[in-house]
Amino acid sequence: MPDTVNRQILLVEKPAGKLGREHFKLVEGRMPEPKDGEALLHVRYISLDAANRAWMHGATYRSAVEANTVMAGGGIAEVVSSKAPGLKPGDIVFGDTGWQDYAAVPAKHLSKMPRLEPMTHLLSVYGIAGLTAYFGLLDVGKPRTGETVVVSAAAGSVGSIVGQIAKIKGCRVVGIAGGKDKCHWLTSELGFDTAVDYKDGATFKALRAAAPKGIDVYFDNVGGDILEACIAQMNLNGRIACCGAISQYDGVPSAHGPRGVPGLIVVKRLTMQGFIVMDYMDRRDAALADLQSWVASGKLKVQEDVINGIENTPQALIGLLAGENRGKRMVKV
Amino acid sequence: MPDTVNRQILLVEKPAGKLGREHFKLVEGRMPEPKDGEALLHVRYISLDAANRAWMHGATYRSAVEANTVMAGGGIAEVVSSKAPGLKPGDIVFGDTGWQDYAAVPAKHLSKMPRLEPMTHLLSVYGIAGLTAYFGLLDVGKPRTGETVVVSAAAGSVGSIVGQIAKIKGCRVVGIAGGKDKCHWLTSELGFDTAVDYKDGATFKALRAAAPKGIDVYFDNVGGDILEACIAQMNLNGRIACCGAISQYDGVPSAHGPRGVPGLIVVKRLTMQGFIVMDYMDRRDAALADLQSWVASGKLKVQEDVINGIENTPQALIGLLAGENRGKRMVKV
Repeated sequence: MPDTVNRQILLVEKPAGKLGREHFKLVEGRMPEPKDGEALLHVRYISLDAANRAWMHGATYRSAVEANTVMAGGGIAEVVSSKAPGLKPGDIVFGDTGWQDYAAVPAKHLSKMPRLEPMTHLLSVYGIAGLTAYFGLLDVGKPRTGETVVVSAAAGSVGSIVGQIAKIKGCRVVGIAGGKDKCHWLTSELGFDTAVDYKDGATFKALRAAAPKGIDVYFDNVGGDILEACIAQMNLNGRIACCGAISQYDGVPSAHGPRGVPGLIVVKRLTMQGFIVMDYMDRRDAALADLQSWVASGKLKVQEDVINGIENTPQALIGLLAGENRGKRMVKV
Repeated sequence: MPDTVNRQILLVEKPAGKLGREHFKLVEGRMPEPKDGEALLHVRYISLDAANRAWMHGATYRSAVEANTVMAGGGIAEVVSSKAPGLKPGDIVFGDTGWQDYAAVPAKHLSKMPRLEPMTHLLSVYGIAGLTAYFGLLDVGKPRTGETVVVSAAAGSVGSIVGQIAKIKGCRVVGIAGGKDKCHWLTSELGFDTAVDYKDGATFKALRAAAPKGIDVYFDNVGGDILEACIAQMNLNGRIACCGAISQYDGVPSAHGPRGVPGLIVVKRLTMQGFIVMDYMDRRDAALADLQSWVASGKLKVQEDVINGIENTPQALIGLLAGENRGKRMVKV
């Protein structure tokens, strides 16, 4: 029998400005009892995502997280017991478990995952991050061989995969990331053609030098000034895949959008398209088959950043928002 | 033989702020001689378009207009003489004739038009305006029966046709226009379901009342605050057809784009797509066939605003930028 103590991290207050450790509290609750249709889960890995922070602003593609509740978040978990058909003890699932040891979750909100090693890959390349990169780049960005693809937050969980898939598709790939080390890693380890360090200042000029023929596809994880710089350098009929706006999440969002909207959108016939990976789940198996073959052949390198201990989850998110991770960050519970 | 005097309107200076009559000058030049490959044209109708003003800011989808040259602009003209195969005296053509009586233009930059009455329809419903409305709404906006379509500058040349096509396609149609009279005209004459007067203030609230189920397709002619209000009220998977940004043309363009970009684009999976009608010209005949059948059956009403005398062209453009026209404005030379 599992321990009946359930460590939980509560969001005690919604941050008005920057997120800090004071906004969270570790408490010990009781192990929940699954109701009919639910499974009792033992959480193994908690996914850290910039979206965790965005949920604190209000309803997005999910309802807002509320103060004094267990912090929401995706996780990989093992079924302990089940009152739902189709799930049995030992099954591995992905779902919004929240930041806690144990959760009782309706089976209809869970995705059954294959047992594979390392299990962490279910949160990185074969999880939301990998699928977001895959569908966002290929279905929304629609890169063609020889085109220039730019991706921001390029050293992050999604960006690092976007850039590698774009290379597999024969594109010239420019990554935008914060810091020399990350930039060096993108080009030396992941095969990006070049990288722009946005912390170096003069991002617009550096981008111009990195993409001298202009940008055909921009995979936007950040919004804000970097989006503005990219819009100005897009080629005719360019596509912008709008995946997220990390620059706007931690603090007070900008009161304005990027210059050039809609003027440059019209003149250059650009398409800006937002997407959510959930909308593509009917094609998940085909995407996973591609991702698995690229990983097996060594064309796609998987970078993970695993932090130990549920008590470190708040700091792991705060650090992720500050850009300290490389690849997919998660907490081993 | 035609008169050999060629009245021309020069742009004497690019406006720093609002466009005024002082930026133009009427001069008498000489009738040009066509070179090989060119046709000598007698201009019959000059098209007035908000884009005329946008060209003064710099290169767009065409090169910028320059000071002390004949003001650029589209027109319907009759071929006087031709040194180009495929064009003969008496042919009717559309092209960038500029604001003048006579122009010598390379045949490859001209579109041969059918002889039909009234000839003015070649600039309105069967011209750039009608085709822009047709392709922008149907190919970019992709409205489905029962959806809510909002169009700004709804009493203008493009907007008035967009709204009527959307009605033909079974949509609920909301027009945004300036002034009670225009709004009344949209609903009583053109069949729009409702209209919002942006000069009334409180556009956001009025739009909410006019589109209580949210907006599925927004055909944007204006950019700026109205685009921002629409983005905030778009439904999931909504489409914004970016046709122009009239609000930004006459004066100093806004230093920022609309709030909600890219945040709401992501969360609501919106698509914002810019387009230029020239990109669709391979399907012009099919579009014209539809437009002609709708006009013939009375489903599509054509509104034109014809001003007499080339000397009135500057004031006609200044007035158009101030929103005084209803339907397609043009000058009879």
